[in-house]
Amino acid sequence: MQIRVINPNTTAAMTAGIERAARDAASPGTIIEAVTSSTGPVSIEGYYDEAMSLPGLLQAIATGEAAGAGAHIIACFDDTGLDAARQCAVAPVIGIGQAAMIAASLVAARFTIVTTLARSVPALEFNVLKYGFERQARVRASNVAVLDLETPGGDAHGRIDAEIVRAKAEDRAEAIILGCAGMAQLAADLSRRHGLPVIDGVGAAVKLSEMLGTLGLRTSKIGAFETGAPKLLTGPLAQLMGRS
Amino acid sequence: MQIRVINPNTTAAMTAGIERAARDAASPGTIIEAVTSSTGPVSIEGYYDEAMSLPGLLQAIATGEAAGAGAHIIACFDDTGLDAARQCAVAPVIGIGQAAMIAASLVAARFTIVTTLARSVPALEFNVLKYGFERQARVRASNVAVLDLETPGGDAHGRIDAEIVRAKAEDRAEAIILGCAGMAQLAADLSRRHGLPVIDGVGAAVKLSEMLGTLGLRTSKIGAFETGAPKLLTGPLAQLMGRS
Amino acid sequence: MQIRVINPNTTAAMTAGIERAARDAASPGTIIEAVTSSTGPVSIEGYYDEAMSLPGLLQAIATGEAAGAGAHIIACFDDTGLDAARQCAVAPVIGIGQAAMIAASLVAARFTIVTTLARSVPALEFNVLKYGFERQARVRASNVAVLDLETPGGDAHGRIDAEIVRAKAEDRAEAIILGCAGMAQLAADLSRRHGLPVIDGVGAAVKLSEMLGTLGLRTSKIGAFETGAPKLLTGPLAQLMGRS
Amino acid sequence: MQIRVINPNTTAAMTAGIERAARDAASPGTIIEAVTSSTGPVSIEGYYDEAMSLPGLLQAIATGEAAGAGAHIIACFDDTGLDAARQCAVAPVIGIGQAAMIAASLVAARFTIVTTLARSVPALEFNVLKYGFERQARVRASNVAVLDLETPGGDAHGRIDAEIVRAKAEDRAEAIILGCAGMAQLAADLSRRHGLPVIDGVGAAVKLSEMLGTLGLRTSKIGAFETGAPKLLTGPLAQLMGRS
Amino acid sequence: MQIRVINPNTTAAMTAGIERAARDAASPGTIIEAVTSSTGPVSIEGYYDEAMSLPGLLQAIATGEAAGAGAHIIACFDDTGLDAARQCAVAPVIGIGQAAMIAASLVAARFTIVTTLARSVPALEFNVLKYGFERQARVRASNVAVLDLETPGGDAHGRIDAEIVRAKAEDRAEAIILGCAGMAQLAADLSRRHGLPVIDGVGAAVKLSEMLGTLGLRTSKIGAFETGAPKLLTGPLAQLMGRS
Amino acid sequence: MQIRVINPNTTAAMTAGIERAARDAASPGTIIEAVTSSTGPVSIEGYYDEAMSLPGLLQAIATGEAAGAGAHIIACFDDTGLDAARQCAVAPVIGIGQAAMIAASLVAARFTIVTTLARSVPALEFNVLKYGFERQARVRASNVAVLDLETPGGDAHGRIDAEIVRAKAEDRAEAIILGCAGMAQLAADLSRRHGLPVIDGVGAAVKLSEMLGTLGLRTSKIGAFETGAPKLLTGPLAQLMGRS
Repeated sequence: MQIRVINPNTTAAMTAGIERAARDAASPGTIIEAVTSSTGPVSIEGYYDEAMSLPGLLQAIATGEAAGAGAHIIACFDDTGLDAARQCAVAPVIGIGQAAMIAASLVAARFTIVTTLARSVPALEFNVLKYGFERQARVRASNVAVLDLETPGGDAHGRIDAEIVRAKAEDRAEAIILGCAGMAQLAADLSRRHGLPVIDGVGAAVKLSEMLGTLGLRTSKIGAFETGAPKLLTGPLAQLMGRS
Repeated sequence: MQIRVINPNTTAAMTAGIERAARDAASPGTIIEAVTSSTGPVSIEGYYDEAMSLPGLLQAIATGEAAGAGAHIIACFDDTGLDAARQCAVAPVIGIGQAAMIAASLVAARFTIVTTLARSVPALEFNVLKYGFERQARVRASNVAVLDLETPGGDAHGRIDAEIVRAKAEDRAEAIILGCAGMAQLAADLSRRHGLPVIDGVGAAVKLSEMLGTLGLRTSKIGAFETGAPKLLTGPLAQLMGRS
Repeated sequence: MQIRVINPNTTAAMTAGIERAARDAASPGTIIEAVTSSTGPVSIEGYYDEAMSLPGLLQAIATGEAAGAGAHIIACFDDTGLDAARQCAVAPVIGIGQAAMIAASLVAARFTIVTTLARSVPALEFNVLKYGFERQARVRASNVAVLDLETPGGDAHGRIDAEIVRAKAEDRAEAIILGCAGMAQLAADLSRRHGLPVIDGVGAAVKLSEMLGTLGLRTSKIGAFETGAPKLLTGPLAQLMGRS
Repeated sequence: MQIRVINPNTTAAMTAGIERAARDAASPGTIIEAVTSSTGPVSIEGYYDEAMSLPGLLQAIATGEAAGAGAHIIACFDDTGLDAARQCAVAPVIGIGQAAMIAASLVAARFTIVTTLARSVPALEFNVLKYGFERQARVRASNVAVLDLETPGGDAHGRIDAEIVRAKAEDRAEAIILGCAGMAQLAADLSRRHGLPVIDGVGAAVKLSEMLGTLGLRTSKIGAFETGAPKLLTGPLAQLMGRS
Repeated sequence: MQIRVINPNTTAAMTAGIERAARDAASPGTIIEAVTSSTGPVSIEGYYDEAMSLPGLLQAIATGEAAGAGAHIIACFDDTGLDAARQCAVAPVIGIGQAAMIAASLVAARFTIVTTLARSVPALEFNVLKYGFERQARVRASNVAVLDLETPGGDAHGRIDAEIVRAKAEDRAEAIILGCAGMAQLAADLSRRHGLPVIDGVGAAVKLSEMLGTLGLRTSKIGAFETGAPKLLTGPLAQLMGRS
Repeated sequence: MQIRVINPNTTAAMTAGIERAARDAASPGTIIEAVTSSTGPVSIEGYYDEAMSLPGLLQAIATGEAAGAGAHIIACFDDTGLDAARQCAVAPVIGIGQAAMIAASLVAARFTIVTTLARSVPALEFNVLKYGFERQARVRASNVAVLDLETPGGDAHGRIDAEIVRAKAEDRAEAIILGCAGMAQLAADLSRRHGLPVIDGVGAAVKLSEMLGTLGLRTSKIGAFETGAPKLLTGPLAQLMGRS
């Protein structure tokens, strides 16, 4: 089974870390192909960045479909474009945000998502509601920007630590979700130090993709995710999407 | 006060109808400028079309901001890109879907949205939830495609009529919302024949824009709609957005 | 278009301030007529006061209807008697509480209502639920009584300031609603000093009334707000309501 | 213990039936005093009638308080004025609507309220939400007016029967609540014929009043139901309430 | 009327206290029979203990049914086995948790449950949701184990006091529920000292049982609580339940 | 990794089918050990049967823990004892009901659970609420008893077919979940014939168990699922659980 992991943040260094996390989780028979979106913002923080990442993301979905991918993973924690991708793909599509929340719900009664900037919180809170976790999950900002996560000498780790301490005390969090694809490599260490499960969505998304593959489940094509006849695109986007 | 009404469906004929509806509702001092998005799908039905309409829509928002618009209206009933637009604009942004639901909630305890295709229903249901009308509103598809609304000799009107009859009987609807910008011109006649308020969102959005203008209210820039520093865009989208 | 603004608090000085706020918001063609309820409590704080204000309020609605009012505004933040008024009037009826929440929801993802006494909070929280804003809105008491708002030398302003500071920190409020018709004149100054939209419901209610007038929308008379045949009233209330 | 049962419908014949139902349920040591409200509509159907019944109802509460009542029952299924009464009384106050729903929730997982006119449904649905039964309860109108319940030769019973049949089939109702104080005498027969619990609120309210009396529980006076200092009433209502 | 009060905690000393509380609340004609479950954990704190208490509890229900009990009370605050008991009994079954919440909802708009260990909180929070009190109730742990409640010289009372103080300040609690059958005897003193209703579920359950008895209401046998044909039990549980 | 699949229905023939479904889904390195509970009802339909299955189930969990199981699966669609098992086990525990709903939520926006008897519906509806799928999922009974599923010549298949047809039309179901472990073998055929994903929970539970194993996630031991000190069990249950 081939799983395409698409990083809609157009920063290749971030994709490399995501690819490592995906490979660590994959079963022997699974082929992970990680791709960086070809156009869009270098990092995604909030609604506007999400919107600007969509053409590149959906183009990458289309490329993967044409190449016969068994599943697509959207490697951005706000699950940007998940419904649109499910509508245009035949193979199933998994978002790392939903994947992480599912994993958390299997090992904890309450959990907290620690994300990057305050500006990203409302979109994540809507996803929490959309997925049905509003009675179990809280969202907190660490005030660490996506691209500062790998800056040496910064206080990113200290800020994330501080939010985890607050989540345990104030939210009664029993597990923590790292709310950014760029935080994947921190999970094991944080879990050990804070004494509770700390979950990164990339690995969870790989396993859920494998689940759907093994069970022969694909996105239902009646109702919300029906693929309509291709629409005429006008203007420069047609060329960008390779449809002119 | 200048209000920019943006049709993210790239079909100019549709924009003309929207412009008429907007002008009919505008106060004497209001200048309506209706624009068709410069790139994107010719009609928007479901998640994928919504996603593909965003670059063109947000470009139009940016153009309007640069020209000093007093408010922006997104003239597509699923309020495509509303949060993203609120994040990048200084002037307030109104979606015709939210506007119509607000108007309905002021004259009826329960109401039903009659939209185009079944594929559009789930996104509208999520907006109903997001705006807090989930206890008052139902969504129904008339199975009339956006671009068939103006086809002479079709049975579009009959199908919409039939859904209104069902909405009164099965949903206990006290008012009807026309869930597509292209249905604006039908409202008065349907209201008369079915004996209840029938609401089009374009006019409502114009009046709500004027309300915010008169009251001096603009989108709050702390929290969800904070405008961050402009992100570097890579790839062809940078050129499309005029940022290369 | 004539809009009747009814102050169900029987304190004429308060009505004068409400009238000013209404006139400031009205369009050139709109005639504002502000009236003080002819009987009831001098100020409304909590459920009992609300109940005692209803006969006077509904009598004023009936008087306005007879005089051909284009819309009625109930100028008390708990929207006392709103459903009853919608049931007996043909012209639309707007409550300043619902109006303020609608305005806030168009410029902020989360907002906080700062009201007078703790005793008023539960009724406002029920309105928040009824209108569907329970995921976006919080209610706080400033512990300033309605009639103390205009007392010179008091600390009313300091208390309201303090609650706004708490709302930003603890509720993540992006906008503030002033939860009492008597606070209207404070909005502009508070907005400037706290750096976020501060909303008074009187102006918002005027603009929403104008919206319904322009769009030709009146309260639906099927379902919740159907006007039944007039009931026989027994006892002294019949005389009070002019129906004996 | 003395329990005052107040019928806010100003129809003495109806009060007599309510009194019988209350006495049937009362324990040996309980004294039932049933009173008809001294002013207000002859029957209560919908929001407007509710509002007009409040002065008479609250006057009756005050009279009962002065006479040392141990508890007050509001014998109208929409629990008109319940919060206001709790705010002004020291003795506990029970509404027959809430009482019936509580009884139903103890013997059934789902239940349906069969009320009088369609116009009464929305207020009852809001009570269902307010009391937290929105996942268990449905509301149906039998289209029988309150005052037609005792009209000989009418089809009131047939209509109520028909709604119970629908409630079992369509709502999966496991119990039925009679949504009008005037239906009390029908409960036993309907229960036998339809094979499920049929609940009238008057008896339930008597037993809940006795419960609070025995347990020494009275309405909490911190928060929502705090009794403030008596407000000055202006106009004719002051005389009506005996406060001039 | 005979009411069987079953303590599923297999600690006889605790049953004695429960019996006293039940007798204090019972009407003259009511016979209280308190029984300790014949097998199970000595105290119930959390999901596992709940599960282990069920065979003994349901055996006691069956014994009571055979003896013609008029009602069964489950005297454990998490209402362990309530639905199962309702399914197998003909007489009604009341849980003290639900009973206490009902009583609280009649005298307060918001209330807080003070229970024993943090481990017990999630199950109580689910009951709060199941019964529909999620907008009114909060749950707090006092970190006092069930069996430490009667230990002389401990700080159990101090910890409960401290949580009540926090509930008033942080939850805006207007009443307190004691979330453990072993706390019954503390209610009167705590109510006096903290100035708000303090509710124990045992007495409330007795009165609700009497209510159902007087009104002739028994658990509905259509739907959720239908008693199916007795299932074959295999293994040692068959002997334990007396069905081999 | 060893996964223990426990069938709490004490019918070995059913366990054999469950084992086949589990092995079909397992990865090469996974060892499936299917066990039939040693004591309890032969089939589980409704609350009472659930309760009676718990001692046998929890004993099987303890045996698996002692043998070093990597994960436990509860192979009954109502996820009987899931929270109790999570509290006493160190290895993660998955219920097939939750697993199936998670799988469905990844391929469909709305889905319907087709279960056995009407008596089983309410417990499943509460699980739907508990897991957060109340806006996406509906539950329907096929009126086929668990043990009739394998009876040759019955109309079990016809009834399940009929409910799927209704679910598509009335619930707008985009996927179907088979709500009983005994229906596993029907999934592939039903999916083909009805043209939408049909999901059995056993395979999904195996894959989710493997996910947690690969990601190194175990049930959080702070909060809801903390394992307390072992409680003294009194009476015959102590012997049954091997703790005397």
